[in-house]
Amino acid sequence: MDFNVADLGLAAYGRKEIELAEHEMPGLMAMRERYGKEQPLAGARIAGSLHMTIQTAVLIETLAALGADIRWATCNIFSTQDHAAAAVVVGPPANGGTAEDPKGVPVFAWKGESLAEYWDEAEKVFDFTDEHGAESGPNMLLDDGGDITMLLHLGVEFEAAGAVPSQDSTDNEEFKEVLRVLARSLETDPQRWTRRAPLVKGVSEETTTGVLRLYERFKEGTLLFPAINVNDSVTKSKFDNKYGCRHSLVDGINRATDVMIGGKVAVVCGYGDVGKGSAESLRGQGARVIVTEIDPICALQAAMDGYEVRRLESVVETADIFITTTGNFDIITVEHFHKMKHQAIVGNIGHFDNEINMAGLAKIPGIVKDEIKPQVHQWIFDDGKKIIVLSEGRLLNLGNATGHPSFVMSNSFTNQVLAQIELFAKADDYELGVHVLPKHLDEEVARLHLDALGVELTELTKEQAAYLGVPVEGPYKSDHYRY
Amino acid sequence: MDFNVADLGLAAYGRKEIELAEHEMPGLMAMRERYGKEQPLAGARIAGSLHMTIQTAVLIETLAALGADIRWATCNIFSTQDHAAAAVVVGPPANGGTAEDPKGVPVFAWKGESLAEYWDEAEKVFDFTDEHGAESGPNMLLDDGGDITMLLHLGVEFEAAGAVPSQDSTDNEEFKEVLRVLARSLETDPQRWTRRAPLVKGVSEETTTGVLRLYERFKEGTLLFPAINVNDSVTKSKFDNKYGCRHSLVDGINRATDVMIGGKVAVVCGYGDVGKGSAESLRGQGARVIVTEIDPICALQAAMDGYEVRRLESVVETADIFITTTGNFDIITVEHFHKMKHQAIVGNIGHFDNEINMAGLAKIPGIVKDEIKPQVHQWIFDDGKKIIVLSEGRLLNLGNATGHPSFVMSNSFTNQVLAQIELFAKADDYELGVHVLPKHLDEEVARLHLDALGVELTELTKEQAAYLGVPVEGPYKSDHYRY
Amino acid sequence: MDFNVADLGLAAYGRKEIELAEHEMPGLMAMRERYGKEQPLAGARIAGSLHMTIQTAVLIETLAALGADIRWATCNIFSTQDHAAAAVVVGPPANGGTAEDPKGVPVFAWKGESLAEYWDEAEKVFDFTDEHGAESGPNMLLDDGGDITMLLHLGVEFEAAGAVPSQDSTDNEEFKEVLRVLARSLETDPQRWTRRAPLVKGVSEETTTGVLRLYERFKEGTLLFPAINVNDSVTKSKFDNKYGCRHSLVDGINRATDVMIGGKVAVVCGYGDVGKGSAESLRGQGARVIVTEIDPICALQAAMDGYEVRRLESVVETADIFITTTGNFDIITVEHFHKMKHQAIVGNIGHFDNEINMAGLAKIPGIVKDEIKPQVHQWIFDDGKKIIVLSEGRLLNLGNATGHPSFVMSNSFTNQVLAQIELFAKADDYELGVHVLPKHLDEEVARLHLDALGVELTELTKEQAAYLGVPVEGPYKSDHYRY
Amino acid sequence: MDFNVADLGLAAYGRKEIELAEHEMPGLMAMRERYGKEQPLAGARIAGSLHMTIQTAVLIETLAALGADIRWATCNIFSTQDHAAAAVVVGPPANGGTAEDPKGVPVFAWKGESLAEYWDEAEKVFDFTDEHGAESGPNMLLDDGGDITMLLHLGVEFEAAGAVPSQDSTDNEEFKEVLRVLARSLETDPQRWTRRAPLVKGVSEETTTGVLRLYERFKEGTLLFPAINVNDSVTKSKFDNKYGCRHSLVDGINRATDVMIGGKVAVVCGYGDVGKGSAESLRGQGARVIVTEIDPICALQAAMDGYEVRRLESVVETADIFITTTGNFDIITVEHFHKMKHQAIVGNIGHFDNEINMAGLAKIPGIVKDEIKPQVHQWIFDDGKKIIVLSEGRLLNLGNATGHPSFVMSNSFTNQVLAQIELFAKADDYELGVHVLPKHLDEEVARLHLDALGVELTELTKEQAAYLGVPVEGPYKSDHYRY
Repeated sequence: MDFNVADLGLAAYGRKEIELAEHEMPGLMAMRERYGKEQPLAGARIAGSLHMTIQTAVLIETLAALGADIRWATCNIFSTQDHAAAAVVVGPPANGGTAEDPKGVPVFAWKGESLAEYWDEAEKVFDFTDEHGAESGPNMLLDDGGDITMLLHLGVEFEAAGAVPSQDSTDNEEFKEVLRVLARSLETDPQRWTRRAPLVKGVSEETTTGVLRLYERFKEGTLLFPAINVNDSVTKSKFDNKYGCRHSLVDGINRATDVMIGGKVAVVCGYGDVGKGSAESLRGQGARVIVTEIDPICALQAAMDGYEVRRLESVVETADIFITTTGNFDIITVEHFHKMKHQAIVGNIGHFDNEINMAGLAKIPGIVKDEIKPQVHQWIFDDGKKIIVLSEGRLLNLGNATGHPSFVMSNSFTNQVLAQIELFAKADDYELGVHVLPKHLDEEVARLHLDALGVELTELTKEQAAYLGVPVEGPYKSDHYRY
Repeated sequence: MDFNVADLGLAAYGRKEIELAEHEMPGLMAMRERYGKEQPLAGARIAGSLHMTIQTAVLIETLAALGADIRWATCNIFSTQDHAAAAVVVGPPANGGTAEDPKGVPVFAWKGESLAEYWDEAEKVFDFTDEHGAESGPNMLLDDGGDITMLLHLGVEFEAAGAVPSQDSTDNEEFKEVLRVLARSLETDPQRWTRRAPLVKGVSEETTTGVLRLYERFKEGTLLFPAINVNDSVTKSKFDNKYGCRHSLVDGINRATDVMIGGKVAVVCGYGDVGKGSAESLRGQGARVIVTEIDPICALQAAMDGYEVRRLESVVETADIFITTTGNFDIITVEHFHKMKHQAIVGNIGHFDNEINMAGLAKIPGIVKDEIKPQVHQWIFDDGKKIIVLSEGRLLNLGNATGHPSFVMSNSFTNQVLAQIELFAKADDYELGVHVLPKHLDEEVARLHLDALGVELTELTKEQAAYLGVPVEGPYKSDHYRY
Repeated sequence: MDFNVADLGLAAYGRKEIELAEHEMPGLMAMRERYGKEQPLAGARIAGSLHMTIQTAVLIETLAALGADIRWATCNIFSTQDHAAAAVVVGPPANGGTAEDPKGVPVFAWKGESLAEYWDEAEKVFDFTDEHGAESGPNMLLDDGGDITMLLHLGVEFEAAGAVPSQDSTDNEEFKEVLRVLARSLETDPQRWTRRAPLVKGVSEETTTGVLRLYERFKEGTLLFPAINVNDSVTKSKFDNKYGCRHSLVDGINRATDVMIGGKVAVVCGYGDVGKGSAESLRGQGARVIVTEIDPICALQAAMDGYEVRRLESVVETADIFITTTGNFDIITVEHFHKMKHQAIVGNIGHFDNEINMAGLAKIPGIVKDEIKPQVHQWIFDDGKKIIVLSEGRLLNLGNATGHPSFVMSNSFTNQVLAQIELFAKADDYELGVHVLPKHLDEEVARLHLDALGVELTELTKEQAAYLGVPVEGPYKSDHYRY
Repeated sequence: MDFNVADLGLAAYGRKEIELAEHEMPGLMAMRERYGKEQPLAGARIAGSLHMTIQTAVLIETLAALGADIRWATCNIFSTQDHAAAAVVVGPPANGGTAEDPKGVPVFAWKGESLAEYWDEAEKVFDFTDEHGAESGPNMLLDDGGDITMLLHLGVEFEAAGAVPSQDSTDNEEFKEVLRVLARSLETDPQRWTRRAPLVKGVSEETTTGVLRLYERFKEGTLLFPAINVNDSVTKSKFDNKYGCRHSLVDGINRATDVMIGGKVAVVCGYGDVGKGSAESLRGQGARVIVTEIDPICALQAAMDGYEVRRLESVVETADIFITTTGNFDIITVEHFHKMKHQAIVGNIGHFDNEINMAGLAKIPGIVKDEIKPQVHQWIFDDGKKIIVLSEGRLLNLGNATGHPSFVMSNSFTNQVLAQIELFAKADDYELGVHVLPKHLDEEVARLHLDALGVELTELTKEQAAYLGVPVEGPYKSDHYRY
């Protein structure tokens, strides 16, 4: 689309999109209706780090409607929708904010940040003032991928150590920026993080990678506060990962390349929930999908679902499209790039950009990186072969399209709202550790999304409930049920 | 098929089918190869109750190959394949058994038992002789649906009470037979069950319903020995329930009715694993599938998978095919029968025949039950309307077809073998309760089935494994991972 | 299924199945209702040669209800359903026929004829008596594959030549039988066929192969009477070929082998209508389907539909299931058999058994043909490798299952009835040649099948019809429209 | 996508996209290779009217590479991709053109023309100069929808009549513009069209609507030159209509609305090739698709493919998405709009914008049309209900996305090139009328696209070809074969 958002007025345009999205997010709207009066988040100061999209705007404004004070950054340098950010900053019409006099929530994000800018902005979500106007920090974190949780934890550690490691200590370009930010902070305010950490009641974490980091910290004994693992709510992991990617994978590829997917051979690396949704997305367009897997159970599932399951080495020379979905690193290597066909398309919908060895690609002698349009590059090898890489190896559904659609995010984000309410009210009841929401809340999230799809739910009779040994109103399944 | 198995020689024909099935059951064959020398089940006396099919024959002969002494009944009056039973009784060719001098495993089952016969036969699996030729009982149970586990538990209870309730105390036709058998036993040998119970190290249970019963007994404090819940191994619940039913549902409908499924409206009651496989089975044939659900999460899944989700009441008058998959009871009621179209087809692939109110159907005034062929009946209403009921409401995939195919059962049954080995060797390590197999065994089961499908599994590098925090050789997922 | 049809009474059982099928064949029942009084086939003597199944029984009894005198053979040695044949012979209850005193239509077919028996029976459909009881022949042919049409044409030719070629003149086992029958006829009645040919007003032909033969005869100038090509009615070729095979392919494989199709690699040779339906059938069960094609357009369609398209040579060593759908010959050769995996499954759903080189297979040195059950054989190579061949290379859906289901055959057969009515009434209006039914009849056939599926058809307004330049009531498409 | 194409340089960006597309259009590139030296279009002056997209750019430059002189307009006011137009005007790098000194093909089209501008530009494609620099007209037309063919025919008619009807004689806004342009032309040059018509050897027409118009003209006896119906080449109608729409329908909806399609109820009006592709597109994303149809054959196909088939009236109140695919008019009426749900999405992928009664919508009392972004409007009813209409009722895949992808258009456009070569060389051999390309060319088009998809084509043996009665190298099917 070639419209000029500036002409429309960024914030006004964002507001229209937010209003459309509200209709598609019945779970969040139900939260506003149910808890709007009660204001369960009054007093909460939430630092958020999550893709700053239209859907997130509806989440932010729902948290605000429940009483929270909020500061927001993104968790990905490409995923911000500027019109969403602008509208959130101005605030909903009822608040009477304008571009000149915004009355919404402060947002520290724009599309296409540099890594340096990203971490500079991330730091800013920790700068609240309390109800008396004094400097303060957040008492709640809402994180996606764990970046701000890490920033806080490392800040505390480095302050305890009295020193931040040199940037030369790492090859990771991104981690250099983390160290730069924390070194600066140590210099200007050596207790900045140490003061803030005890204020935090807990964090609700959105995604697999972040949850993994939390479990590791907990195992190592370095976790500072309880966490709710939103990712593993069924209505999150089995919905946004699967159905969200089914939607947004082909959307991202289409917008980026306009290449016909039908008839092509597409390799999906990984057959977890994201991989399952990705494979279905491509198959739904008539691609022939080949799956790679390390886990024999998931590999067997892929085979039973009718997919060819191969090692990447076996098919890298003949496939047309390569999508990583693993949450692991170095899935697509320099050696793979060398063997790919001319105009092969490579993208990542897993988590970090290191699923694809972008650093290695850039170092191939004689290679030229040529931008076709933002977030779409052709890497030209010295023999003229071109490989098309989407979103520089970062999440293509966010970089090349608009991420998961509102309806599926309404499920995830309703879990987030419930987790924030739960943790803010009862953090003391939660032991240090990583927790999931109780099943009845998970079922409630699903229930809030049925009417919008015209679903009629059957009710158990008392006799049937007794026969199954479950309450008529649920929860209906044991905790280990897999759906 | 109209071949006359008698002409072929039942056992010889069964043996051929067993040999074909062995090729399709790589997991079981791997068990024989791996443990054949070691004989981990030497000394085990296994009482089994599980559909006596060709696949079960391969399971039985695998258990025997690992050293076990075995007696076998079925868990369903219609599901026995007589040629399978005959071949198991005669035994594998290597044993040198013949019809006159069988050297296999005693089997107490045939296709089309009455309920009375069923429970008479079930009792027989408890009559072992020990290594000295003395009367003994099993030291291991292998159950499907929990019938022999129940028989033993109730036997012990009634012997403790010194009395068995009168058959008039229940309306349930089947439970009357249980009471009859136990009353007879109490009269002839009042300590029969009390002597046997302490011999049992544990039970491995195959299916949801049986597992549910075990958890209830455990909760009530009446469970007598540890149980391994095979049903909830991923390679069982997510494979045999889903992919097995995808195969066997349309197979059963086709063999029973020869009706074109394409273009028809089919209602699948329940969208658990069995329902998911059933819906896919019917959709794969071009039916338009409508799902009914009580659980909002499963209902939302069905909607996201593109199915219409309605209450049965809303569609009962227009649908052509009705399949219950719930494990609950009274899903299809007399009222539903009254509203169905002429020549509607009704079948159950869930668990017990009470998913469909067969008793109520039989009591409709003026109704006539007319057999089209065994396991296929038309119930003729007094206005001439006919409803076709498959397998008298019992599992249609077993009654009208041959049940799940070998390959998927190889997954389930490899779990059974591993569970029997585990429990027999380490029962003392297991607390009283219901346990699942550890994930590395679950992954192993999957791994044993990959080669047969030509699957290439990718191996983690050490660096990747470290990045994920898992061993290179697995297990790869947390226990709560849902697949 | 192991029921003994004899116990049930063959004809009585067939009658029940016919009654069930009538409900599934709304097109044929509409023919009876519309034309029952008018008796448009009064005076017609129809010689039929078409698979003697339950569905054909409903066709035969529809033709009879419209006034025709009929004699019937089958067009395939394995496809006869004996209970269907028996019921047709006895006749519908209204006629008052019994096994002892049948009042139905003479049928010359049973399941499992030898080739000699097949051609002996085929000859018998030409022996009518006219209304005066004098010897006569049919005045209408209804053919499937063109066997009786060929018999008549060759009979005339050989009588004209005064000699029948020696059986040694051909290697084809089946053609030897044709020559035998015609030689016998020439000896006993040298003008038998010459007398009969001029009586015939025309033939309606059911299938691609038969139509091809008719076009060839017409091109060569040897066609004796006009033909209606029923095969190329849209409601035939795009329905029974495609949707019928979608149903009956997996049904046949399942009944024959009980092998899990999900996860397997299946090769479908040919991607015409039969191939399209076959590929969908296998994919619907979770197989990974590979297609072979000679026509670049069909090959491109297969690729765009997401199938891998390969030469058989490239995949013969790794695939599990091989299905021919081509109407051509020597698709699966001896060389292919040598390269196949142990327990590969081979079947044909195209037309003749020469799609698979069965003769070559039988001649492999050391090979043993072992019957697992009727129509299912394992061919054991001298190294122990077994290949499973269905229905001895003949149509597996008819040999191993019950053929296409009633509903789709109702479409094809309603075309047959309309073609018989048309030709019988207006044969003189038809030039010598091969004709298709006019499009408005094709649409009518479809229209008669919509209610049964609950389809609501939209009606054009007059303005819309004018805009499109078509009548409100159809036909709606140009003759070259491809659907 | 929010990149600013101006920043990139429109033409340079267009050139990059053209180079990517060339890889995806193997048929067109094969044309250049095969005919580049021969220059079969030398002397051809082609007036083209077809969506000015990247794919069309590759077509135009292919025609130019074969020697043609070309002038180009679009056939849709919204479908032009300005960067494609710019690049075509500048010309390929080899020509040495620049923005200041373009050396490509004149293009008269931009995204978002008014209707007046559209017809002013359309007229310009008729203004060639001949090889001597004298005023001349085209000798070949290449049309999509028949607009320039109509302009020429009406021009001749009005010049013969000496008058153009008044603009008041029609309610059709677009036809008013046609009359305006022709009235102006009559005034300034009363023989403009009469001089030009005899120069034209013929037209190749791309689409159903245009073909329909040609057949009508031919029937009425007013067609001025022979036409090749490219639309009905199999590699066009069964590929671009079906597979193209499968790709571009969800692409258009996604870019326009970002609404989750999964779980939604989508109505597809019409089940021709476009409808079939559209239904598959939506189903592939997990929507529940309902089809409306007027043709009983297509309706039965839809039902057999598992879709619900209803009248629009029956489902208009509950569906979420409405897509017209019919080529007819007034499919979605004002009454329908009144009954739709809040935030229902309405779009057209058929042909003209009158499939949806946009004029009627605009006249609803109190309705407000509000632009969300270009080509996406919400129509706000006076009760606050909003309906979202895509591309103002014009082709949404072109207006909201980038139209069919290159690969499928390569099929259609290779047919166009072959048709232009054929007509230009042999127009005299073609009788006045509407012709389709011979089947061997159709197969050739398919053949040119197989390698790109890794398809292995099987070759007939001589014996097999003889058996089928076809040449080894094709064509393989009769003309009436439906694919």
